[in-house]
Amino acid sequence: MSPVISETELIQRFFAGLGGQRTDVLLGIGDDAALLRVAAHQDLVLTTDALIEGVHFLPGAPAHSLGHRALAVNLSDIAAMGASPSWALLSLNLPHADPEWLEAFAAGFGALAKVHGVALVGGNVSRGPLSITVQLAGTVPEGQALRRDGARAGQALYVSGQVGDAAAGLKVLRGELRIAGDAADYLQRRFEYPQPRVQLGAALRGLASACIDVSDGLYVDAQRLLRASGCGARIELERLPVSPALCQALGDSAWQQALDGGEDYELCFSAPAANAAAIAAAAAGHATTVTCIGSIEPTGGVELKSKNAVMQFSPLGFDHFRD
Amino acid sequence: MSPVISETELIQRFFAGLGGQRTDVLLGIGDDAALLRVAAHQDLVLTTDALIEGVHFLPGAPAHSLGHRALAVNLSDIAAMGASPSWALLSLNLPHADPEWLEAFAAGFGALAKVHGVALVGGNVSRGPLSITVQLAGTVPEGQALRRDGARAGQALYVSGQVGDAAAGLKVLRGELRIAGDAADYLQRRFEYPQPRVQLGAALRGLASACIDVSDGLYVDAQRLLRASGCGARIELERLPVSPALCQALGDSAWQQALDGGEDYELCFSAPAANAAAIAAAAAGHATTVTCIGSIEPTGGVELKSKNAVMQFSPLGFDHFRD
Repeated sequence: MSPVISETELIQRFFAGLGGQRTDVLLGIGDDAALLRVAAHQDLVLTTDALIEGVHFLPGAPAHSLGHRALAVNLSDIAAMGASPSWALLSLNLPHADPEWLEAFAAGFGALAKVHGVALVGGNVSRGPLSITVQLAGTVPEGQALRRDGARAGQALYVSGQVGDAAAGLKVLRGELRIAGDAADYLQRRFEYPQPRVQLGAALRGLASACIDVSDGLYVDAQRLLRASGCGARIELERLPVSPALCQALGDSAWQQALDGGEDYELCFSAPAANAAAIAAAAAGHATTVTCIGSIEPTGGVELKSKNAVMQFSPLGFDHFRD
Repeated sequence: MSPVISETELIQRFFAGLGGQRTDVLLGIGDDAALLRVAAHQDLVLTTDALIEGVHFLPGAPAHSLGHRALAVNLSDIAAMGASPSWALLSLNLPHADPEWLEAFAAGFGALAKVHGVALVGGNVSRGPLSITVQLAGTVPEGQALRRDGARAGQALYVSGQVGDAAAGLKVLRGELRIAGDAADYLQRRFEYPQPRVQLGAALRGLASACIDVSDGLYVDAQRLLRASGCGARIELERLPVSPALCQALGDSAWQQALDGGEDYELCFSAPAANAAAIAAAAAGHATTVTCIGSIEPTGGVELKSKNAVMQFSPLGFDHFRD
């Protein structure tokens, strides 16, 4: 039913000029590669992440949300480095060229790109099973990137926003979690439209000692940060920031979802205690909350405490090759 | 039958440290994003290209060749900009984690990366229908990139190497072209192991006026260069560089394959007549041939001439969404 359209026409019609306009784009879509000018005294940050039908999203998922999410998951990696995003490339494998789908996808991608001043500067479209791969480049002042390996014992452990919502939202979409209207809508939206903490990440430069984004679950991602830093941590379960919707949906087991649920794209970071006020101010300045959920310890993995009792927890996490 | 292996283990085992070692990689695989230092007075060049099973390669194609080709097609885009490649990201969608396949793929990718000094600095591996997306970054001295839009009437039109081989090689692999052993092997190898003209591209800076790589066929790609430059061209069929193997396989119709066959990853470029000797020297210095195949004309598309007769030709080219 789709009208015949060539790859070149498709790119021109739906993707040329998408996102923000930037003077550092010397050549965007239309040559063999994009040509960009990196400002002096900036390091380059590069990341890529993919969304695959049936793996990262349900078959038939709304194209507008996919456009948003495909960029958001990459923006989140840039945010976790404390960098500012600048240029995106898009590789789209499509079973067929459906103009309606493409328009909605481009609208979702383009709207988020504009918010963060990202220009779409290249990519390719192929026929194939639906998958979306985005590569995102950003810049950060030389030597100031946030890494995973800077946490030190005695520092505080933080997470931004609220965690566990997106994973619960996916369960709602799958029909695995049945709850009332408003809470269901809220959780579903948190899965379909994650808000990467780009401004917060940049504001944490010089304040946070290590940072990672929460893509596979707070517990698993915090462990990654701790392993890179050679530390352990104690997390107090009562401090975990959970939304009213998640509490309504899961009651007493909300904390488990908060630790285990992926796809939230919040930031988990460590910082010296002396920076607490500056961190709170940075978060407030970017309309985000941050919560101190525990402390960095010299050794061990993640110890979970609830009212002085040590809790046991086995994360499911998410791994493509371990069922 | 595959042993259970996590995504993190898989990346560590097969991909960490792949390719060349570079001092400008501040953080490679293992953080949220790669962190890189761009040298002063260099512009950044970014490209991405994908290989999808059943579209860009036959099901069951050898993994070593896929690793080589996935990088080669991106190196070719960098070459066409006159840039030097530096950092690659790899997005791999795999139906299952087969260590033998992964080892061969990484060996093919890594060997070509080493030749061109490219470091693999990040990426992701997901479970999904087999597809390979590579993003490649390179640098070029400020303002010196080769673009598509610089050809001018009166200049000469060139192509590197020999064209048509790869498409014929694919026909051999598909059983659509039956020829004797050595020629078949040669053509097949030209499809499976294209040699991107990276050194030649860099050497053409300041000599070529416009450049494009031949991925979809010489006729179609030359037209793209001409359209971007607002020019036409006359190509003399007798000058088309074709290999003995292609002549043996296709006889009198070799020229059609030379114009129409994609996947050669040679460079097509224009240059002022005055640069002919310098171009020949640059090619010889990089063990590549270049052939002047015609001239840039003020208007029109591509006119094909053979012994003063104008020839008609309808390219098939390749388009994902136009069957």
